Amino acid sequence: MNKELKKVNKNALNPNVSVDCVIFGFDLEKLTVLLIDRCRNKRDKGIKLALPGNLIYTNEHLDQAAIRVLDELTGLKNIYLEQVGAFGNPDRISKDSDREWLKSIRAEPEASVITVAYFSLIKMPDYLPQASSFAKTAGWASVSEINELAFDHFEILQAAKEKLKQKIKIQPIGFNLLPEKFTLSQLHRLYESILEKPLDKRNFRRKIQKLEIITSLKEKQRGVPHKPSQLFEFKEVRYQELTQNGFDNFGF
Amino acid sequence: MNKELKKVNKNALNPNVSVDCVIFGFDLEKLTVLLIDRCRNKRDKGIKLALPGNLIYTNEHLDQAAIRVLDELTGLKNIYLEQVGAFGNPDRISKDSDREWLKSIRAEPEASVITVAYFSLIKMPDYLPQASSFAKTAGWASVSEINELAFDHFEILQAAKEKLKQKIKIQPIGFNLLPEKFTLSQLHRLYESILEKPLDKRNFRRKIQKLEIITSLKEKQRGVPHKPSQLFEFKEVRYQELTQNGFDNFGF
Repeated sequence: MNKELKKVNKNALNPNVSVDCVIFGFDLEKLTVLLIDRCRNKRDKGIKLALPGNLIYTNEHLDQAAIRVLDELTGLKNIYLEQVGAFGNPDRISKDSDREWLKSIRAEPEASVITVAYFSLIKMPDYLPQASSFAKTAGWASVSEINELAFDHFEILQAAKEKLKQKIKIQPIGFNLLPEKFTLSQLHRLYESILEKPLDKRNFRRKIQKLEIITSLKEKQRGVPHKPSQLFEFKEVRYQELTQNGFDNFGF
Repeated sequence: MNKELKKVNKNALNPNVSVDCVIFGFDLEKLTVLLIDRCRNKRDKGIKLALPGNLIYTNEHLDQAAIRVLDELTGLKNIYLEQVGAFGNPDRISKDSDREWLKSIRAEPEASVITVAYFSLIKMPDYLPQASSFAKTAGWASVSEINELAFDHFEILQAAKEKLKQKIKIQPIGFNLLPEKFTLSQLHRLYESILEKPLDKRNFRRKIQKLEIITSLKEKQRGVPHKPSQLFEFKEVRYQELTQNGFDNFGF
């Protein structure tokens, strides 16, 4: 155990405040999210899948706590996380299976806990989640196929999706989700999967071109079973500029 | 522990979670914010002004807690509040004057507290703040003239201002801040005071007209010491529509 960790362990847990992380990825077809399986043995009942999350320490910065908890449960390190918001419905821990599970891992399982949710967009292939702590396994699930999660995590996932939909209206997206070189179809599919609706192909391409955030490469796809498509990459300076300032079309 | 005691504990204060409210108004010249003076007697030292805020109850919904606390401290009832985010820097209660003050009002003054901030926009003349609880007085201050506040409230105010600046880019604003009938100069001044920069008058008017959110009345200002200006009102249906959907100029 290194010094850093010892220092953290000295501090007491804040029994009333937790953090949860919504980590979005994109498998070139569907929007995905990182979940942990908290199932301890095969006889455990109830909902097994949850967002990676845990209590914070009393002297820990909320943002730091989110980064630490994500690392501890999934092995993802130093991820840039943005706040979604705080969730404080007193009924958020009302399912029997959630209460039973908390009894097995927490010193004060009956304490009223509000949680602060964070979200991030990451390139999936860069990271192989390494489950540890109380996470038995960690892995990616297709967002559209998730119908329930532990605690109020389904509600939190919806709020994070909504935040992403808002973000896409005022900022470019894709740099953290797509491979360095990508096709227009892949970018198109990314927007469709975030917005959860089909987008007209020509219209989409015209709008993307107008933003001037991508540039075509003198390179095509290789090893694909169909006619290879043109590859593109993001213009980083322009992309960052629009990320900073937003599309800001009203122009103030 | 018997049932009775458990029940009592459920209604106890959550020592680790508070809410704070940033209530913006507009006095037709400047953006204002509602503050409380927590000064108990003239000999009290340190920063006296703070945002209205307090601990939540353990069995209380966060959003409900914010509405309750605002009411208790300022008499403002049933205000629609939107979340700004959670603030959890462990140093947020580090000023001596803040610690002293907490000792005088809290059962666990040393507890580590994260706070969830909310904000709202209201018409100033509709409400005369009625201070009570630990607020000695409550009143409106010009946002641009505030240099310090208790705890991390200055930081929270900045975050709420930033949220407002973002909001103005994707939604119309003014319905909750201006009188029912207003002049274009007043609307112009509102945008300038939120964005904290001068806006070209002609350009601003052209953009507002393009949004189709206001309609001119067959009425002019009365009793003003200058040439009376044309009065306008918001087109409520169109305004609500744009509030719901945003300007959405990227068009997805």
